[in-house]
Amino acid sequence: MAKPLNIGMIGYGFMGRAHSNAYCTVGNFFELEYQPVLKAVCARDEGRAKAFADNWGYESVETDWRTLIERDDIDAIDICTPNNLHKEIAVAAAAAGKMILCEKPLSMNADEGEEMCRAVESAGVANMVWYNYRRVPAVTLAKNLIDEGRLGKIFHYRAVFLQDWTISTDLAQGGEGLWRLDVDAAGSGVTGDLLAHCIDTALWLNGGISQVSAMTETFIKERMHNLTGKVEKVGIDDACAFLARFGNGSLATFESTRYARGHKALYTFEINGENASISWDLHDLHRLQYFDHGDDSIVRGWRSVHVTDGDMPYMDKWWVPGLQIGYEHSFVHQVADFIEGITKGEPARPTFRDALETQKVCDAVLDSARTGQWTDTGAAI
Amino acid sequence: MAKPLNIGMIGYGFMGRAHSNAYCTVGNFFELEYQPVLKAVCARDEGRAKAFADNWGYESVETDWRTLIERDDIDAIDICTPNNLHKEIAVAAAAAGKMILCEKPLSMNADEGEEMCRAVESAGVANMVWYNYRRVPAVTLAKNLIDEGRLGKIFHYRAVFLQDWTISTDLAQGGEGLWRLDVDAAGSGVTGDLLAHCIDTALWLNGGISQVSAMTETFIKERMHNLTGKVEKVGIDDACAFLARFGNGSLATFESTRYARGHKALYTFEINGENASISWDLHDLHRLQYFDHGDDSIVRGWRSVHVTDGDMPYMDKWWVPGLQIGYEHSFVHQVADFIEGITKGEPARPTFRDALETQKVCDAVLDSARTGQWTDTGAAI
Amino acid sequence: MAKPLNIGMIGYGFMGRAHSNAYCTVGNFFELEYQPVLKAVCARDEGRAKAFADNWGYESVETDWRTLIERDDIDAIDICTPNNLHKEIAVAAAAAGKMILCEKPLSMNADEGEEMCRAVESAGVANMVWYNYRRVPAVTLAKNLIDEGRLGKIFHYRAVFLQDWTISTDLAQGGEGLWRLDVDAAGSGVTGDLLAHCIDTALWLNGGISQVSAMTETFIKERMHNLTGKVEKVGIDDACAFLARFGNGSLATFESTRYARGHKALYTFEINGENASISWDLHDLHRLQYFDHGDDSIVRGWRSVHVTDGDMPYMDKWWVPGLQIGYEHSFVHQVADFIEGITKGEPARPTFRDALETQKVCDAVLDSARTGQWTDTGAAI
Amino acid sequence: MAKPLNIGMIGYGFMGRAHSNAYCTVGNFFELEYQPVLKAVCARDEGRAKAFADNWGYESVETDWRTLIERDDIDAIDICTPNNLHKEIAVAAAAAGKMILCEKPLSMNADEGEEMCRAVESAGVANMVWYNYRRVPAVTLAKNLIDEGRLGKIFHYRAVFLQDWTISTDLAQGGEGLWRLDVDAAGSGVTGDLLAHCIDTALWLNGGISQVSAMTETFIKERMHNLTGKVEKVGIDDACAFLARFGNGSLATFESTRYARGHKALYTFEINGENASISWDLHDLHRLQYFDHGDDSIVRGWRSVHVTDGDMPYMDKWWVPGLQIGYEHSFVHQVADFIEGITKGEPARPTFRDALETQKVCDAVLDSARTGQWTDTGAAI
Repeated sequence: MAKPLNIGMIGYGFMGRAHSNAYCTVGNFFELEYQPVLKAVCARDEGRAKAFADNWGYESVETDWRTLIERDDIDAIDICTPNNLHKEIAVAAAAAGKMILCEKPLSMNADEGEEMCRAVESAGVANMVWYNYRRVPAVTLAKNLIDEGRLGKIFHYRAVFLQDWTISTDLAQGGEGLWRLDVDAAGSGVTGDLLAHCIDTALWLNGGISQVSAMTETFIKERMHNLTGKVEKVGIDDACAFLARFGNGSLATFESTRYARGHKALYTFEINGENASISWDLHDLHRLQYFDHGDDSIVRGWRSVHVTDGDMPYMDKWWVPGLQIGYEHSFVHQVADFIEGITKGEPARPTFRDALETQKVCDAVLDSARTGQWTDTGAAI
Repeated sequence: MAKPLNIGMIGYGFMGRAHSNAYCTVGNFFELEYQPVLKAVCARDEGRAKAFADNWGYESVETDWRTLIERDDIDAIDICTPNNLHKEIAVAAAAAGKMILCEKPLSMNADEGEEMCRAVESAGVANMVWYNYRRVPAVTLAKNLIDEGRLGKIFHYRAVFLQDWTISTDLAQGGEGLWRLDVDAAGSGVTGDLLAHCIDTALWLNGGISQVSAMTETFIKERMHNLTGKVEKVGIDDACAFLARFGNGSLATFESTRYARGHKALYTFEINGENASISWDLHDLHRLQYFDHGDDSIVRGWRSVHVTDGDMPYMDKWWVPGLQIGYEHSFVHQVADFIEGITKGEPARPTFRDALETQKVCDAVLDSARTGQWTDTGAAI
Repeated sequence: MAKPLNIGMIGYGFMGRAHSNAYCTVGNFFELEYQPVLKAVCARDEGRAKAFADNWGYESVETDWRTLIERDDIDAIDICTPNNLHKEIAVAAAAAGKMILCEKPLSMNADEGEEMCRAVESAGVANMVWYNYRRVPAVTLAKNLIDEGRLGKIFHYRAVFLQDWTISTDLAQGGEGLWRLDVDAAGSGVTGDLLAHCIDTALWLNGGISQVSAMTETFIKERMHNLTGKVEKVGIDDACAFLARFGNGSLATFESTRYARGHKALYTFEINGENASISWDLHDLHRLQYFDHGDDSIVRGWRSVHVTDGDMPYMDKWWVPGLQIGYEHSFVHQVADFIEGITKGEPARPTFRDALETQKVCDAVLDSARTGQWTDTGAAI
Repeated sequence: MAKPLNIGMIGYGFMGRAHSNAYCTVGNFFELEYQPVLKAVCARDEGRAKAFADNWGYESVETDWRTLIERDDIDAIDICTPNNLHKEIAVAAAAAGKMILCEKPLSMNADEGEEMCRAVESAGVANMVWYNYRRVPAVTLAKNLIDEGRLGKIFHYRAVFLQDWTISTDLAQGGEGLWRLDVDAAGSGVTGDLLAHCIDTALWLNGGISQVSAMTETFIKERMHNLTGKVEKVGIDDACAFLARFGNGSLATFESTRYARGHKALYTFEINGENASISWDLHDLHRLQYFDHGDDSIVRGWRSVHVTDGDMPYMDKWWVPGLQIGYEHSFVHQVADFIEGITKGEPARPTFRDALETQKVCDAVLDSARTGQWTDTGAAI
């Protein structure tokens, strides 16, 4: 019989739902030593918090995250707030001895992230950042193929994360559902929101990034601000692209925007090695494209691998070959791995420390865009 | 606060899991008047039934389905057994006044199906058959587009359901996990298993089928039988293809096999109308292909619609544009619609009576394959 | 220095252009013992014949094909007329000792075809039918892969040829550019025009077809006839689908129509073998899809082979990897192979005799559609 | 009757073949006032020049390009030599009053290019550079759609040109077939060879580029040199990526490499506008992807436009809908347009002056890669 893992969730937005669903579902598909228990959800607006709790079965509600953190019946704090609150909550939660599952990006910048790392490390609490795409089975498979050495020496990495949801000038910034456009709450625009995903995957698959040259753009300079009620300058980057050099000698291009008409969440990456290449696309997340130069030349081509068989990562838990899973399952997998980590005493990745590397690259990207100079990331390579 | 809808599930296989997951999940995403409660699961093997109950949170276990049906605390019986038990259970459950959710195909043949229809209709109980693909959002969208009249007069329908999992001669027939290869348990092979899905969708999208000409083949004539321990004649159809004429004057081809190397569950359909065409593929179930002849000729082409936006069927309940859902969600949608049906006093489709039409086509297909003659389906057109 | 091969072309339509281009081009890319020389073009309308001759560089013009056939300076007659003239011309040309390159389908029916075969065989003249798709490099590659045994035992074959150009009721039948809708000129509709291509490829790749069950439909029953100036009954089949059994035990579906909105010339075939499968699509004719079950299971998927490398059929003659050729090149390849055949004294395929097999299947298909019975093709299996 | 346009071709390599084919073919498909006549081919190696002349039907052979230029019977010089000879030949040919068709890139650098522009402009001779991809029908269609204003304000441009043919360390540099790896002959690596194509298309579709930040890499530092017989330092860039800002405010990423395993000639571009987006891929050059935000939201998706209909650019000259043309046809179109230009007295684009803009961007890219600084192109925006 699984032991309880008592969850205290802070925030109730899109990510609050994705995580709650993962906690509810994981035990039905994975055999684990711990079963997440939805102990409490915390939000400033009590009515909304109660509605969320009712919907998902949280046992209680808090309106002050400090109170939540102090509760003895909570094992783990799940931080789903806007980015500007991550650090304060995480540092306090660590001090209270709680495990922490923090939404990405880790922090507003690397300095904050460093402080958070020190907090969890000195407290010795389990910690993890929700870079969920690592646990899309096709992405995990990509990692396995690289680790098996199938690609050989890597020459190129390229990633984009393209959306089109902020093209309208009528869209406001700030507040419920729109804090990602408010630089005070988000820290940056697409860099912290979307490129952070691309960078996390890249560091995981291809190692450290040493240098970047970046440009950013804010296409719509002013928007109504929902918190002030006034038209205000937009502080975030609407688009960002950068060149990078990895420690392994490979070259990369990264690009993200919310102005790419026709793309809702087109996160793609491709990696070209001496012997093989792989690519992936979030819009068809259950497929991995694989090219193996070792194939007979007359039948050599990109293979479209439908990642649904039982011998593919995580897929023995779900249905049968040919039947795809979706976006939400990546969170289920991450909860499963977090619990496995607790059980085995090994950290589930990415830890805060892992995620700090992504933060350093984000900082370097934003610096480079400001200065127009190639910028060292200071990251481990 | 939602009222309980007490479920008694019979069977614990692949479909038992898919349905249980739907019951557990639906309330978190849909606002409904009833909340499914996993009251009991029933299977002959008590140990397995208990394990299944533990995993999914069923409150109790039964080993005799007659006992389950008699329990006062059960509102609805979910039949997930092999096909040869559907009729007897359904007739008894109807007599006991239970709602019934029956796995597809409805029955071993149209005669059994007719008896089941009479039973539920005279008992006046809610009834539904799990032809889940109707509730894949892209398929529901296809139905909506047709109902809006976007396609105009229909000329052609074509569907295939291709798999490759029984090519090996080492595969046995009969028993746990393999009853679909045993004619006594399944009634037929790909016809009842896979073509039944294709036919259900087709009847829903394009109306009744009047006539068919079919061929079947059993490539591997003998297999070890797990129930008898002997090599026995294989009684099912490994492959089946048929030509059809619809009541609306359109022509169709249907094909299914478990010997199409490279295809795991390639269910595709395409429908060509005077003004527009649509096609869909289960391997990428979150996309609908749409061709509109009304587009400017120089930019006319098949549109790949990523069915993930909030204005697409069911998608307001899930995530955000670009983030796909998977196979299992079709069952969640079906439970939601079943409960809506109870609430509104309108049957959720397909009812037993709807599913009987599919059964009639299946019977005609198998007859035609036996006789080599074009065969009337006797179905409503 | 190449020797001349003097061509006398009869007809100047779409196929006249495709063949003329092939004769003009072949010597620039293939090293051959003979160089086609455009000696004469023949058509009833002298003005048009002259214009065509001027455009392509034909040295002379004839208005009576009998005169052309009698000319001593003509080595080979190329028959590009409507189908109803093939037999008479071919029999006469054979009697005159000319080589014959005949457009497909060979004839109006198998009886005519048989007479044509006897004529060329008794005259001992080189003969070939322009089933050009055999020489699309991806299709030739498919043939090679099958001949190498990569697919193993074949279970399934499926082909469609879908167009949408005759949906409008305003389209007339008969005469210039529209003779394919006139049953007197064409013999049949999609069966002889499009399915003949599908059948030719199928017989080549998968051997003989023993039996068929077919249906045909004429959606628009009457059309203005350009030759009579009256609205007349349409005698051709607008659509045709059939089931088939091959001599090797595999099952097949074939379908063709000119009412599949969204498809211009979607000729696709797929063949499923025990060990591998292949598929091809005329709309992307430079690609072959290949699935090899022998691949490691975690990286197994359909390979999209870009058939442009120098080690692929015919491709050493053209450009460099990645740069595609198109439709017209299949005719160039066929001319090259015809000339190679003359040089080596081996017939270039398909000969009249090969094409007669396709004619037999077409006849059986049309018979089956009329009688509603499974029909033996009488073809070699 | 068409008047002769006497061609003198210098060089006989891959491009020599592509151009010769275009000259031979154009008159059969386009009605033009001039018919190219293959008057002479020039190459240092007389034997090879003769073989080439025999194959293509050139009337004569020269071994010194200066002699060719002086011939009175030559109207137009076609420069297909390695890049390092373009300037000297072009300047001399202009002085001799010849029209000039020059292979891309225009020159080794912008200074040379400027000199060439002045030479042709002061001589008043027709001049054009073979950036053939502008005349792939799908690309021309993209241009037309943009010019019609369908995209609205442009936010993003991205292009890659990926190959994998130089990954092997065994490949030599220099000499026949390999001069593109020799910096003395080519001037640069992928920048002048592949990115020049990308830049030409981009400037044409999206206007001037103002600034770039670039990086280059030479993965294999030394290779055997075929001209010296020694292992020598490789002077070209194997890979190059750059960020760019266009004059219209849009952002861009460009990347090219010969180390992207799995890609033979993957030239793709995508352009995202406020109202619509388009993308194209050389590997399927007969298709254009188009997304129109104005479509009804429930059927909105990327349209795959099969650019083969008669109302699409150049396609009325070729076959029928659905039948694709290939790479070589872009050269035929360019010859046709060059001749139209002569007839109308309007320059066919890109002229030397147009191509100089591409040269300036290439120079800025290479400078930026050397200095690590954002670099102004000095180009017209």
